[in-house]
Amino acid sequence: MVEPANTVGIAVNPTPLLTDELDIVIPTIRNLDFLEMWRPFLQPYHLIIVQDGDPSKKIHVPEGYDYELYNRNDINRILGPKASCISFKDSACRCFGYMVSKKKYIFTIDDDCFVAKDPSGKAVNALEQHIKNLLCPSSPFFFNTLYDPYREGADFVRGYPFSLREGVSTAVSHGLWLNIPDYDAPTQLVKPKERNTRYVDAVMTIPKGTLFPMCGMNLAFDRDLIGPAMYFGLMGDGQPIGRYDDMWAGWCIKVICDHLGLGVKTGLPYIYHSKASNPFVNLKKEYKGIFWQEEIIPFFQNAKLSKEATTVQQCYIELSKMVKEKLSSLDPYFDKLADAMVTWIEAWDELNPPAAAAANGKA
Amino acid sequence: MVEPANTVGIAVNPTPLLTDELDIVIPTIRNLDFLEMWRPFLQPYHLIIVQDGDPSKKIHVPEGYDYELYNRNDINRILGPKASCISFKDSACRCFGYMVSKKKYIFTIDDDCFVAKDPSGKAVNALEQHIKNLLCPSSPFFFNTLYDPYREGADFVRGYPFSLREGVSTAVSHGLWLNIPDYDAPTQLVKPKERNTRYVDAVMTIPKGTLFPMCGMNLAFDRDLIGPAMYFGLMGDGQPIGRYDDMWAGWCIKVICDHLGLGVKTGLPYIYHSKASNPFVNLKKEYKGIFWQEEIIPFFQNAKLSKEATTVQQCYIELSKMVKEKLSSLDPYFDKLADAMVTWIEAWDELNPPAAAAANGKA
Repeated sequence: MVEPANTVGIAVNPTPLLTDELDIVIPTIRNLDFLEMWRPFLQPYHLIIVQDGDPSKKIHVPEGYDYELYNRNDINRILGPKASCISFKDSACRCFGYMVSKKKYIFTIDDDCFVAKDPSGKAVNALEQHIKNLLCPSSPFFFNTLYDPYREGADFVRGYPFSLREGVSTAVSHGLWLNIPDYDAPTQLVKPKERNTRYVDAVMTIPKGTLFPMCGMNLAFDRDLIGPAMYFGLMGDGQPIGRYDDMWAGWCIKVICDHLGLGVKTGLPYIYHSKASNPFVNLKKEYKGIFWQEEIIPFFQNAKLSKEATTVQQCYIELSKMVKEKLSSLDPYFDKLADAMVTWIEAWDELNPPAAAAANGKA
Repeated sequence: MVEPANTVGIAVNPTPLLTDELDIVIPTIRNLDFLEMWRPFLQPYHLIIVQDGDPSKKIHVPEGYDYELYNRNDINRILGPKASCISFKDSACRCFGYMVSKKKYIFTIDDDCFVAKDPSGKAVNALEQHIKNLLCPSSPFFFNTLYDPYREGADFVRGYPFSLREGVSTAVSHGLWLNIPDYDAPTQLVKPKERNTRYVDAVMTIPKGTLFPMCGMNLAFDRDLIGPAMYFGLMGDGQPIGRYDDMWAGWCIKVICDHLGLGVKTGLPYIYHSKASNPFVNLKKEYKGIFWQEEIIPFFQNAKLSKEATTVQQCYIELSKMVKEKLSSLDPYFDKLADAMVTWIEAWDELNPPAAAAANGKA
C-alpha cells in the first residue's frame, strides 16, 4: 500500500551536500595550497590525495581538511603486483583514488584549478553544480534545443517524445574551464595567448552514439554506476604516451554508458584553470596519441558490446578484449594496455568485493 | 597553377551581408508591423511573403521593404494540381516560399518574433548570426566540449581528431527564442507562466545520428544544399494534424544531412518570441502528433538511405517510400503525406529545373 510520507523535520534543500557520499580525488606532486581558495565549498568533504612522483616528498594540505594520502609506496603495498596498472609520473594515477574510495560519488579536480566567477561576479560552487548534474536525469536519445530540460526555467520543447521525458540516470558530469582552455600541444603552440572567456550557461547531455573528449581536470561521476570504467590507463613513466589518460577513460565510459543506458552531461560548472602546461613537454607526451587517436576513435565509434555484458565490469572486460584484438596492430602498447585494463578490474573487485558492494547497496 | 589572389578593393568584412543571395520567407495572416522593429537588420533583404487564409485580405507591409507576396490563388495558379502539397490555414504554407525563391540562402521567421537583446542589452542581429553559422563549418562526427570550435576565442579541444577539424558544410542554422519558449500544448498548460530568460551564448553542431525538434520560427538554411528536403508537410485545413510541420521537416533534413555529410547547427541567434499561442487550440492540432511521434521518431532514427541516393531529391524520394511503407499502418494520413512528398519534389524540380540550377551554379 502506498502511504503518504512523513515529512516532519525534513528541511527543504534543493541541492543535497552529500558530504557522506562523496570523495574528492586530487592527484598532485606539490603542496595543495589551491585548496585555500576552495575552502567554503570543499572543506566539508573527505579528500583522497594521490601523491605522484617521489614518495619521500612531504605534501602540505591546508589545515582543517579531512584527508587520506597515498604515495607510490602505499599503492604498491595495497595492490601488490596489480599496482602495475596504476600510472606513475602522470596524473593518470588519480584513478587509484577512485578505486580506494568507498563512496557513491567522486569529484576529481586538478591542483591548478581555482574558483571561477559567473558573469555576475559570483564565485561558482563547482561541486554543487556537479551534484545537481548527477542527481538529475540525462536525455541521451533525442536532442533538446533548450539544453538540460531538468534545469529551473527550462523544459522539453515541442516535438520531444513524451516517452523519453523521464530520462536516464546520469553517470558522469563533465565540467569546463575558464581562462586556460584544454588544448592539445599543437593548438597551444599556434594560439599561445588564447584564453577562454565565454561563460556558456548550459548543461547538456551528450547524445547516445556520440563520443567526446573527456577532460579529467574538473570531473564528477557516480562510482556505483560507472566507477570500474573510469580507468585512466597506462601513461607517463615507462609508457610511450601521456595526456591521453582522461581521453581513454572518456571513450571507454561513453561506449559503456551508451550500452547500459546511462547519461553523460557536459557544460557547467566552470573552474578557473590557472596555468597552461608547457606545450613543448606536452607535444612530446602527446604526439603518438595524435596519430593513434585517428584510429582509436573509429574503433570506439564502432565498438559494440554484447547483450551478455550487463555490468560495468563485464562491459570493460569485453572492451579490453576488443582493444587487444583490434588495436594491438597499431602498437604493442595496446596489448599491454588491454592487459592493464583486466588487471584494473581485478584490483577494483579486490578492493570493492561484489558481496560488500551488494551489502552497501542493501544498507 | 596556384596563384596569389588579387585583393585590391576587397574590403575586410567578417560577416558578409549576402543581400543578393538570401531571401526572407514569412508566412502570415496579418499585417507585418513586426518588420518595423527589424528594419535596421532586415530591410536590405528581399522578402517572400506567403499569405495564409483568405486571399482577398490585404496584407500591409511596412514601407521601404522590397517584397513579393503570394496568396492561395497565386499558389494554385503557379503549381496547378501540384498545389495540393502546400498546406492551407497553417504556417506550413511557408515552404512554398522556399520553392519560389531563386537564392542560395533562406531565413524564415514568424511574425510574432521580435528583436532579442543579449545580456549586455545589445539588440541581436539574428540574421547576421545565422549567416555566420551557415558560412562556417559544422562538426557532426565528434563532440567539441567548448561548443562551436570555429567561433572567435574557441577551438577544438585536446583529444579532438585532427582529421575531423576541417568539418563539413553547414546546411541548417536553427535559432532559439527568449521569452515564450516553444513548448507543446501539455507543457504550455502545465507551465503557463514559464518564460525563457536564459541566454546561452553557444552555437553547436547537432551530432550525426541524433535527431532534434526543429522549430520553424527562427530558422535559416542553404537552399542549394538542403532546400528540396525543407518540406513542411500537410498540416492545417483538411488534415488531421497541425504544429508538426517544422518537426516533420526537421526529422527529414537531419536524416538527409547525416546521409550526405552536411551539418546542422543550433543555438544562437535568439529572437524574442512575443506571444504564446492558445494551448487549447494547440492541443487540438497537436494531439495526434503527440501519439504519432512516439512511432515516427524511431522510424526516422532507423531510416537508412541507400548509397545510390546522392542528391537531396533522391534522398527525399527514398524517404517518401519508407514513409509509405512503414508509417501508413499508423494512419492513412501518412499514405497521403508520402504522396505529397513526391508531389513536392516534382513541383520543386519544375520551378527549379536542374539545368537552370546547374547554370546558376556555374554563373
